[in-house]
Amino acid sequence: MDFLYALEMIGTFVFAISGIRLAAKKDMDLFGAAVIGFVTAVGGGTTRDVILGAYPVVWVEDLNYPLVIFLALPFTLLFRKYLVQMHRTIFIFDTIGIALFTISGMQKVILLGYHPSIAILMGMVSATVGGVIRDILCNEIPLIFRKEIYATACLAGALTFYILEESGSPTNLNFVITVLLIVAIRIIAIKKNLAFPKMK
Amino acid sequence: MDFLYALEMIGTFVFAISGIRLAAKKDMDLFGAAVIGFVTAVGGGTTRDVILGAYPVVWVEDLNYPLVIFLALPFTLLFRKYLVQMHRTIFIFDTIGIALFTISGMQKVILLGYHPSIAILMGMVSATVGGVIRDILCNEIPLIFRKEIYATACLAGALTFYILEESGSPTNLNFVITVLLIVAIRIIAIKKNLAFPKMK
Amino acid sequence: MDFLYALEMIGTFVFAISGIRLAAKKDMDLFGAAVIGFVTAVGGGTTRDVILGAYPVVWVEDLNYPLVIFLALPFTLLFRKYLVQMHRTIFIFDTIGIALFTISGMQKVILLGYHPSIAILMGMVSATVGGVIRDILCNEIPLIFRKEIYATACLAGALTFYILEESGSPTNLNFVITVLLIVAIRIIAIKKNLAFPKMK
Repeated sequence: MDFLYALEMIGTFVFAISGIRLAAKKDMDLFGAAVIGFVTAVGGGTTRDVILGAYPVVWVEDLNYPLVIFLALPFTLLFRKYLVQMHRTIFIFDTIGIALFTISGMQKVILLGYHPSIAILMGMVSATVGGVIRDILCNEIPLIFRKEIYATACLAGALTFYILEESGSPTNLNFVITVLLIVAIRIIAIKKNLAFPKMK
Repeated sequence: MDFLYALEMIGTFVFAISGIRLAAKKDMDLFGAAVIGFVTAVGGGTTRDVILGAYPVVWVEDLNYPLVIFLALPFTLLFRKYLVQMHRTIFIFDTIGIALFTISGMQKVILLGYHPSIAILMGMVSATVGGVIRDILCNEIPLIFRKEIYATACLAGALTFYILEESGSPTNLNFVITVLLIVAIRIIAIKKNLAFPKMK
Repeated sequence: MDFLYALEMIGTFVFAISGIRLAAKKDMDLFGAAVIGFVTAVGGGTTRDVILGAYPVVWVEDLNYPLVIFLALPFTLLFRKYLVQMHRTIFIFDTIGIALFTISGMQKVILLGYHPSIAILMGMVSATVGGVIRDILCNEIPLIFRKEIYATACLAGALTFYILEESGSPTNLNFVITVLLIVAIRIIAIKKNLAFPKMK
């Protein structure tokens, strides 16, 4: 679907921006920022495909991915001030990006014939590992392990999407419901300051 | 062998617990702990298989691995206090896990037709890389590079196993000797406070 | 070409030494130093091949790579004092190593039929990711993202090599020009204290 492809590109773009902005905070140079943006955007899908041996990894054949990512660098530099104000818009697109990466990751793994539990796991990998690599390259304990109900939203979304698909409900509808659910969970979690219980 | 498979599951379980406990120390949430447990348990074998292109990686097809790992989370939560007291039992199973992962990693690589030196190297990768990824995700310099004669025990075990196999000695016996050797090296190293010489 | 192979081995050796020396600074033991030396030397090429699914990864079949790397450990221990004085020689070989890894990485990816932009990207991956993994294992923000015009030299070299190849100029000549360019950029950058602009 062209609409999904456009959303996937927007998700890639927004993920790249999140990497570039963290790199800037960490006082990296332009090159470092470009690299961090790149791995944030493609790290999840690449990890999924490498673990499954599902070659080729998508961005080495579809050059729109590298293109969109490299455009994120001048975009972030030019609109730096606006990005701070656009906090909410970025949050929405980031969450849609997560939802998309979760679902498209799951679908790919199901098509490859794996068990649904592996598909759900790999959907989460697709959505979250890019951010984990970003944080490690910036020498931080990954945010996802500490603060937000981020991965939980992916998990809830992945389970919902799987159950809806199994129920025979149309994929487009399932997709919309899943994205709305993930967005809703994240918004409620932030508003209510919800967090997963600590181990200690 | 069913006995070996059971030991491999126990090794996986104990590795997962070691990840979950470090995550708890680092103040991660439940999700973070589950992830750290997961990568600690499967990181070594996955890295070996991905480097060799030996697909499929075992845990995406044998769902007992993810199952055992996810059971480790409630287990660790429930028996937290006992785990502290069970220090010695955990140490023994952890060492048996290392020995097992080293040997099963080697055997897989030899069967794939690689040179024995690559098999020995990959046996060590199987046993140690999970712990390295665990430490990096927790933002620590990997323990294995600093403190224990841990990898050295693997190396000694791997060499011994290879020489015994070449000598025509039966595999089951070689296996038992190797595990005992690795356990003995680690116990002696801890009792005598032995460590590998520092570079400086 | 035998000459190129010899240079590749020297590059591997020098990369391993850079890893071993950083490990020594970080107070690691001999085993840790050997591992860091290993991943510094092979990390870039391995990452490239794993992302592309271009198996087998070269060092699991050509045992000269592991051999050269493990020889770097006693070499570094024995000639530690001289290495400090040999600062310039190491710098030159390190830069030649980078140039070589960039070009040989690119050539491999072009032969596999990928788009030139992916080849250039993977040439840089080949030359730089080993050092990134080295720094992460030592719990530092990768040097390459902060200080030197290191990756930029690779990028300039990769672009130049690609344009020269397309122009029909002989590969040997293109190779020499590219290596000289990369060496020149790094020397000028250090002399003039040039750095890529920071994001902030």
